[in-house]
Amino acid sequence: MEYSASVNKLAQPLVKALLDNAAALRIGVEQLKNGCTVIDAGIQVPGGLESGRIIAEICMGGLGKVSISQRAYTENWPLSVNVTSSNPVLSCLGSQYAGWSLSHEKYYALGSGPARAMATKLKEGKQEPVEELYKELAYQDKAESAVLVIENDAIPPIEIVEKVAAACNIAPSKLTIIVTPTSSLAGCVQVVSRVLEVAMHKAHALHFPLENIIDGSGSAPVCPPHPKFVKAMGRTNDAILFAGQVHIFVKGADEAAQQLANDLPSSTSKDYGKPFAEIFKQYEYDFFKIDAMLFSPASVIVTAVESGNSFRAGKLDNALLDQSFGA
Amino acid sequence: MEYSASVNKLAQPLVKALLDNAAALRIGVEQLKNGCTVIDAGIQVPGGLESGRIIAEICMGGLGKVSISQRAYTENWPLSVNVTSSNPVLSCLGSQYAGWSLSHEKYYALGSGPARAMATKLKEGKQEPVEELYKELAYQDKAESAVLVIENDAIPPIEIVEKVAAACNIAPSKLTIIVTPTSSLAGCVQVVSRVLEVAMHKAHALHFPLENIIDGSGSAPVCPPHPKFVKAMGRTNDAILFAGQVHIFVKGADEAAQQLANDLPSSTSKDYGKPFAEIFKQYEYDFFKIDAMLFSPASVIVTAVESGNSFRAGKLDNALLDQSFGA
Amino acid sequence: MEYSASVNKLAQPLVKALLDNAAALRIGVEQLKNGCTVIDAGIQVPGGLESGRIIAEICMGGLGKVSISQRAYTENWPLSVNVTSSNPVLSCLGSQYAGWSLSHEKYYALGSGPARAMATKLKEGKQEPVEELYKELAYQDKAESAVLVIENDAIPPIEIVEKVAAACNIAPSKLTIIVTPTSSLAGCVQVVSRVLEVAMHKAHALHFPLENIIDGSGSAPVCPPHPKFVKAMGRTNDAILFAGQVHIFVKGADEAAQQLANDLPSSTSKDYGKPFAEIFKQYEYDFFKIDAMLFSPASVIVTAVESGNSFRAGKLDNALLDQSFGA
Repeated sequence: MEYSASVNKLAQPLVKALLDNAAALRIGVEQLKNGCTVIDAGIQVPGGLESGRIIAEICMGGLGKVSISQRAYTENWPLSVNVTSSNPVLSCLGSQYAGWSLSHEKYYALGSGPARAMATKLKEGKQEPVEELYKELAYQDKAESAVLVIENDAIPPIEIVEKVAAACNIAPSKLTIIVTPTSSLAGCVQVVSRVLEVAMHKAHALHFPLENIIDGSGSAPVCPPHPKFVKAMGRTNDAILFAGQVHIFVKGADEAAQQLANDLPSSTSKDYGKPFAEIFKQYEYDFFKIDAMLFSPASVIVTAVESGNSFRAGKLDNALLDQSFGA
Repeated sequence: MEYSASVNKLAQPLVKALLDNAAALRIGVEQLKNGCTVIDAGIQVPGGLESGRIIAEICMGGLGKVSISQRAYTENWPLSVNVTSSNPVLSCLGSQYAGWSLSHEKYYALGSGPARAMATKLKEGKQEPVEELYKELAYQDKAESAVLVIENDAIPPIEIVEKVAAACNIAPSKLTIIVTPTSSLAGCVQVVSRVLEVAMHKAHALHFPLENIIDGSGSAPVCPPHPKFVKAMGRTNDAILFAGQVHIFVKGADEAAQQLANDLPSSTSKDYGKPFAEIFKQYEYDFFKIDAMLFSPASVIVTAVESGNSFRAGKLDNALLDQSFGA
Repeated sequence: MEYSASVNKLAQPLVKALLDNAAALRIGVEQLKNGCTVIDAGIQVPGGLESGRIIAEICMGGLGKVSISQRAYTENWPLSVNVTSSNPVLSCLGSQYAGWSLSHEKYYALGSGPARAMATKLKEGKQEPVEELYKELAYQDKAESAVLVIENDAIPPIEIVEKVAAACNIAPSKLTIIVTPTSSLAGCVQVVSRVLEVAMHKAHALHFPLENIIDGSGSAPVCPPHPKFVKAMGRTNDAILFAGQVHIFVKGADEAAQQLANDLPSSTSKDYGKPFAEIFKQYEYDFFKIDAMLFSPASVIVTAVESGNSFRAGKLDNALLDQSFGA
């Protein structure tokens, strides 16, 4: 794949929009001593749907659009996001995916968004991407500044900030870190906006050749936030698992497209069938025991552009959605 | 509540968009002798849906987004607005609400939009807000220029223009007044875009603490304009009363959220059940005899973010909508 | 009609957006020896939904907005475009319509978009519009640069480029030509975005006075692209014929509005009832044998603003849509 777009550079106007409108968006902006800008989108401040929408577009590296509207798919939960991308593989996997594991003492978070694409580490005398995924994507971003999104209830400790800046090979003053709690409105919006991303990620896990995915679009309801982390996270996942829809366009043979459509929906997972919070509890809160194939949209259309044939599988389940969201 | 955003300043780029694209939007622009810019969005000129959309965003003080699309909620009337706000209380009550009573001789109009937030009057030696509401909002805007929206069939007389400028403490040359007739397309769009505002206003009338409302979104069909004022106004109201939907997010106890959900829908009003024009006629065209609780969306979801519980009440009534819109 | 907006000037920021984001949008940009900029949106490059959306807005001369979302109208095909215009007659007929017949040796294409409005030819010693339609519209654009959209599988030969520039009375270096194959994603999006345009065109063919059309909006599903031209073209047409919806606002008598509503839907055509590709084959691929009245949206609402009455006719046909799109 050839990618000449810089996700960090494309995201900068959106970061500027957050900073310029911080008061209107009711988000907090703080400059750390090391110069890093930290945006609080729901810890000490209310934040809201619109800040979440902009943060979702930042996560997508400026290569995606997220809109919020009231739609008729999920009867009891009209509030929804609609996600389009001009380049779903780069936008979703190369930027939006929460793939950068960051920890310091008791603080643990998964970093998502553009900065991931700039992060390298020294391995056997060579700088290589922090995440293996980037080798497969053959993408390495270079930009003057970087932005990372963290889903957490707390601002990261300075050690993590320094680590991120160093990995991106920039001064901390050139780094912006945006923090959205899972239980905040901004957090809900930015997570359910991952509906297309989880499809890309599962396609990758299913070994579908990413270079054959040429486009895609998705939608999902915005979950009502929950104050408790497990329920909050459960709802953000369930929004996608029970009511996320994607339409993906792929090159290659019909058989591969049909297989992808068949394998992609959340309902193919052995863990499908109850709210995520219950599954998580059942596995004693060990995330890695959950079937990785669960994380995907409810309903999928895959169009094979070389034949013109479309394949569809899965469906929305409003009853399960109501169970999760608390109708 | 803390509001550091200036609704007049945030609205200025939208006012500029109207002025720069006046020809494309088919609106009229006139500069009065005193320097005030008056925008005609449907009196001598056709105006249209798109100018109405931009005017609706101006009404919201640059803190809201309005989009027009064809949706599946109201089967016979797909054309709809979708309204989101980054701060519904400030945007809807502090700016969009038509709360400034303006009259001179036979001209009477309610002013809405950002200028309201700058308007003060001298009372017992002190400058205080023209509208009592601003004391409760504890919001006073200060900006170099102001914009007011008037729903009327005629440009206001110069005396009203002077009065508005003086109240806002600016020269008339720093004031823009936008006039949309109720019977115009722009008028229809800007009024039905008040779907979230009427929910905020009724929440306030119900004594729900405004500082507990943290976010919200709404949608409503665009009514077909009617040449006669009463029917035109009736339809703009009915669009919201019979087919407006909102989802509001609040802090505080579940009981308060549930009570708000139960009390908000238009169907709770004793006057609910027939097109607004008929109700208005029944009360001999005395607006103030109509139950104030009628003015609210048809369908309401209130999510209590501190518990994660959602409460819903009301429903769309397509039969009544058809009766009003003339299916 | 008075039109003081320049469709070519209004389209330039959108052309710039394509050029500035070529890498992100995966489109190709080439400068010909004569200086003309040619944008490839799906021949040698993948292009995609988003580039198609921007191209659709360019086609509309900067006077329209096209958004892509997943909607509930066409159950099996949620991916849809929504089209609004601030001036449907000028935007759709004066710019978007594919009315400029261009050929050189074996290359044949219909040019659409803003450049049409600048094109003149010498006739009996006088410069007059290349297309008769512009005399009726009484619109002649003048701008420093022009942009033309061509639906074709190949970049046009230099002779056509020179001809277009000469007709527009500009240097080739001031001309941008955008090429979208019918079988590409960008092609599908830009063609189905003509849902409002075909309504304007048929209204014109039905001799409805264009100056009485004051506004309109439309929507249609995005068809899955097909590699074969006839099927690809068939699907782009069927998206509108079987599932396109418009709401038009007109001046004048109710009778004329009702007649327009009754006559507009595709189902009024004697050729309605099977996928377009089959009809085309049945007429031995002679486009001009097909009933011109076929090309129109499936479902139509016409509101007569002088009476406030609305008239509706036609309906979506999901079964025929599935037959065309290959459910």
